[in-house]
Amino acid sequence: MTIFTKIAKGEIPSWKVAENDRYYAFLDISPLSKGHTLVIPKAVEEDYIFRLDELTYEGLWAFARKVAIAMKKVIPCARIGVAVLGMEVPHTHIHLVPLQTEGDLDFRKERAKVDPEEQAALAASILTEYEKL
Amino acid sequence: MTIFTKIAKGEIPSWKVAENDRYYAFLDISPLSKGHTLVIPKAVEEDYIFRLDELTYEGLWAFARKVAIAMKKVIPCARIGVAVLGMEVPHTHIHLVPLQTEGDLDFRKERAKVDPEEQAALAASILTEYEKL
Repeated sequence: MTIFTKIAKGEIPSWKVAENDRYYAFLDISPLSKGHTLVIPKAVEEDYIFRLDELTYEGLWAFARKVAIAMKKVIPCARIGVAVLGMEVPHTHIHLVPLQTEGDLDFRKERAKVDPEEQAALAASILTEYEKL
Repeated sequence: MTIFTKIAKGEIPSWKVAENDRYYAFLDISPLSKGHTLVIPKAVEEDYIFRLDELTYEGLWAFARKVAIAMKKVIPCARIGVAVLGMEVPHTHIHLVPLQTEGDLDFRKERAKVDPEEQAALAASILTEYEKL
C-alpha cells in the first residue's frame, strides 16, 4: 500500500483540503509555496497519470478543478499552477501550486519549514470553500 | 486574437502533433526537452485554465491524455510530465514535457536551439501515432 493510500484512508495524518468518494486532496508537507496541495485518486495506485483508466483520469481532473477554485479563494496568488511529475511516490498525484510568478513552480528550490497550526487552519479554510462549490 | 488562436487556425505555421475539432497540439518552438508539446483549446481564449468552462476544461484533459500516449510511443523517455503555468501567452495551454528525471521540468533552464527538419519529422511521427488511437 502506498503512503498516499494510507493518507487517503486516514492511517497517516494529513491536512485535508478536499475529499469525495473517489479522490482526496491534502497540503504538501514540503510546499513550494503556501497552500501547495496534492490531489490523488483514493483507490488506484497506478504510478503514471497517463496509464490511469479514462474514468479515473477524467474524474481526477474534474476534482482538481474544484480544489483549485477553492484554493484560489483562500490563498492570495496570481494563479494556481499545475504540475505532474510522478517520480517521487508511485501513486498518481497532481501538484496544485499557488503562484505569484512562473519561477514559483520550481521543484529544485529549497522548501520552507511549515508551521503545523498554520497549515491546519489553511487546510480547514480551503475545505470550507470546497464544500460550498 | 492570440498567437495560439492564429496557430490553431493555421495563420501562423506550427509543427502539428495532434488535432480534433476543438483542440490542437504542436511542438514548443523553445522546448525543455525533445518533443515538448503545447496543448490548447482552439476557440477559447480564456487565459486561466481554472476559469475555462467545465466542458472545455474536461475535453482539453481528455485530448491531452491521447497526445501524451502518442508522444510516449515516439519519444524515448521515462514519463511525459505535465505543467500549466499560464503566464506567458493569454490562452490556456498545457505543457507536455518528455522527462528522464524530475529536473527536466525546469522552466528556468536554458533552451536548446531546434533543427526545423528534425522537428517536422518528430511532429509527423507523433501525429501518426495519435491518429491510430
